[in-house]
Amino acid sequence: MISIYNKNIEEIIFSLLKETDKEKIREIVEEIHPVDFLEFLENYEEEFYNIVEKLPDDYIVELINEAEIEDKLDIINKISEDRKNNVIPDISSDELVDMLEEADEEQKQDIFEYLDEEDKDEIKELLEYPSDTAGGIMATEFLTVKEDMTMDETIAYLRKMAPDYQTPYYVYVVDDDNILKGVVQLRQILTCNSDTKIKDEMITSVISVDVNTDQEEVAVLFEKYGFASMPVVDEKNNEILGIITFDDIMNVITEEHTEDMYHMAGLDTEEELTGDILTSVKSRSMWLTINLFTAMLASSVVGFFEGTISQIVALATFMPIVAGMGGNAATQTLTIMIRGIAMGELNYENEKDVLKKELCVAIMDGLIIGVLIGVITYIRVRNIAFGVIISCALLFNILVSAIGGFFVPITLKKFNIDPAVASSVFVTTMTDMAGFGCFLGLATIFMKYLT
Amino acid sequence: MISIYNKNIEEIIFSLLKETDKEKIREIVEEIHPVDFLEFLENYEEEFYNIVEKLPDDYIVELINEAEIEDKLDIINKISEDRKNNVIPDISSDELVDMLEEADEEQKQDIFEYLDEEDKDEIKELLEYPSDTAGGIMATEFLTVKEDMTMDETIAYLRKMAPDYQTPYYVYVVDDDNILKGVVQLRQILTCNSDTKIKDEMITSVISVDVNTDQEEVAVLFEKYGFASMPVVDEKNNEILGIITFDDIMNVITEEHTEDMYHMAGLDTEEELTGDILTSVKSRSMWLTINLFTAMLASSVVGFFEGTISQIVALATFMPIVAGMGGNAATQTLTIMIRGIAMGELNYENEKDVLKKELCVAIMDGLIIGVLIGVITYIRVRNIAFGVIISCALLFNILVSAIGGFFVPITLKKFNIDPAVASSVFVTTMTDMAGFGCFLGLATIFMKYLT
Repeated sequence: MISIYNKNIEEIIFSLLKETDKEKIREIVEEIHPVDFLEFLENYEEEFYNIVEKLPDDYIVELINEAEIEDKLDIINKISEDRKNNVIPDISSDELVDMLEEADEEQKQDIFEYLDEEDKDEIKELLEYPSDTAGGIMATEFLTVKEDMTMDETIAYLRKMAPDYQTPYYVYVVDDDNILKGVVQLRQILTCNSDTKIKDEMITSVISVDVNTDQEEVAVLFEKYGFASMPVVDEKNNEILGIITFDDIMNVITEEHTEDMYHMAGLDTEEELTGDILTSVKSRSMWLTINLFTAMLASSVVGFFEGTISQIVALATFMPIVAGMGGNAATQTLTIMIRGIAMGELNYENEKDVLKKELCVAIMDGLIIGVLIGVITYIRVRNIAFGVIISCALLFNILVSAIGGFFVPITLKKFNIDPAVASSVFVTTMTDMAGFGCFLGLATIFMKYLT
Repeated sequence: MISIYNKNIEEIIFSLLKETDKEKIREIVEEIHPVDFLEFLENYEEEFYNIVEKLPDDYIVELINEAEIEDKLDIINKISEDRKNNVIPDISSDELVDMLEEADEEQKQDIFEYLDEEDKDEIKELLEYPSDTAGGIMATEFLTVKEDMTMDETIAYLRKMAPDYQTPYYVYVVDDDNILKGVVQLRQILTCNSDTKIKDEMITSVISVDVNTDQEEVAVLFEKYGFASMPVVDEKNNEILGIITFDDIMNVITEEHTEDMYHMAGLDTEEELTGDILTSVKSRSMWLTINLFTAMLASSVVGFFEGTISQIVALATFMPIVAGMGGNAATQTLTIMIRGIAMGELNYENEKDVLKKELCVAIMDGLIIGVLIGVITYIRVRNIAFGVIISCALLFNILVSAIGGFFVPITLKKFNIDPAVASSVFVTTMTDMAGFGCFLGLATIFMKYLT
């Protein structure tokens, strides 16, 4: 799938071991994407020291910038003292913050040693923001220009500053107090007349995010507008504090999505495909235990009707159908709702329409499934009352699943509880209890027609 | 959350209605992101004609480029004939293709009328690629340069071509046969000496995707490398055919996420929060019907043991617990597996480790839940055998859920069936049948200890 490139990447990296010419080494590694280099290092850990020793400092910085959060510290810990002096100050502020959040107090102090006072203060400030907010994911290496600069002056300025800053896609325009005034695309700078002023080309209504915005909301904005980067501001005075780029947001989108799926299944969001067994057992058994107690609620409803079941044992046979249909219908409404909430599509205005739709769908689905099971049951047990009762129970059950599937996530959301985590346990308990209660209750009332 | 900007956007757009100065109108709309303009148009459909009439052609092009696939045609259909002449040829090729895929034959022919022969052929070629492959999402408006050009020549060339091409983040380098030779970042061009040649700055090992690559795999590469754009090539000769940019990929990522979640719940991927009721009923009732028949399989297992239940009615009370625990444990393993497959994290090498982990977790979870329910049951019914039997049944059930949760998605994947769609119905049927069978079977064997 990836052409040329991946075929001999291991060979190329191994060839570095024999290479002594620094310029040659630089040329070789410039052709290797840091992400691929990191994959190599993961597969050949025993060669780590020998190979990393050969790399230029700025490539090591790139490796740390691109590494998974939990691997960044690992790389830092493995390089020599004088290397750290050159590497640590050049790590992107957002990546450095991610790294420090994983570090213990001693490691943290050790890393701070390599930063100058200004950087240290800046990083300490960044560490104050919760890691899942705009402030927690923004970088502070962004370039700003003044509105009176010409395109030529801007290019000269970019040329001077570029090595120390992240790839700029847009250049932000600020006044003397760092208040965000406008934005210019990099390609506009390139393609305008050289004496055009920034203020003549800039867009003044810049779409920005407040530093306290949740990262999920930031992701929604990136998707909506398709920006390559967005400025982060202090909402009070519109001062620019940092930028967020699309590549960080892609990870956020995937992270948030995995989180939603895992939460719905009662999995820890940190669980990995081949992760630690005890961690998995801890979080999963917790969830199963909660579900065990709610299943016992459903079970107690059945227990309430033991007398009825003892007289008509065939009722027990239909219980898996009642439970299964309610659970499946509930999952459908819940998935629509949880996805809608996560995507920011569900709002105050369309809430009523969604409820109306879910109720209509539930009634129609309930009728279809109800009639189907009624006919099948009649054929199986040759008793019309039995068929009617199971029909009614399923219709009722599917209706309850829609009502629960709609109101539970909305209510949880209003109490600031992630609806993905807690909804399904509430809703399936509701449908189980309602389904069994309706089915066995009707059977008890109309028992004389069933035997 | 969005500063300044959104406060009076409706007011600003309404002010266009009274404006007659074309230059003034251009200045106003340039400050409004097309996505926000589209939102406005959706809310004020009755003003559509009056407002769109005022807009410059190139802004209408932007609106169409940014509109949801199903809305693009709508805009085209509403603008005047001579407008179409100016607008249609300027729509991005990838957006035009998306639009044409939604159009009927007549609309298609009508739109082709406005394209010149060359564009028509190009679009027809693009329409040949399946819409969920790299070829189906790529655009053909990309800029290429030759390796002997200097930075100054490149800038002059970009300046000339820029208006007709998508924002370039990277510039691709090709030979005379359009074979991909290298890539240069836009910012490198800006910050190098003006007489540096492209070939001295370009990276030659370009990471590209073959035109037939599935869009989900393309998304994985974008996430992995954090590229702003990627070239699409013909794998055979490395000829560059198009480019894909990150903003298209963000939509793909979200689309694929939603698809996975919806498939797991048996929802149609096109279903919307406030969509058409009948469409929802059709797809959802289909899924519920399938599940009805599989629930009947589970029900027939229970039916097999009617004799046992008639003697010990309390067994029926425990059935919801057996079904619930199996279902929940299965969902956990399934979610891990389906997410792992979708993210490209599950492969031939780690398959065994994953299975080992899932089995270990299931045994430990099964023991925890088994002992817990055993003790609770003993306290409730004061019968050790009852406690032991329900314990064993849950341990067995959770183990089956891990085995099914592992093998079913892997097997479906091997037969090229989306594991998200079909796994849960198979696995829950397995766990229900195994759980009921084990529980009621043990109860039948050891009946004399239960009464």
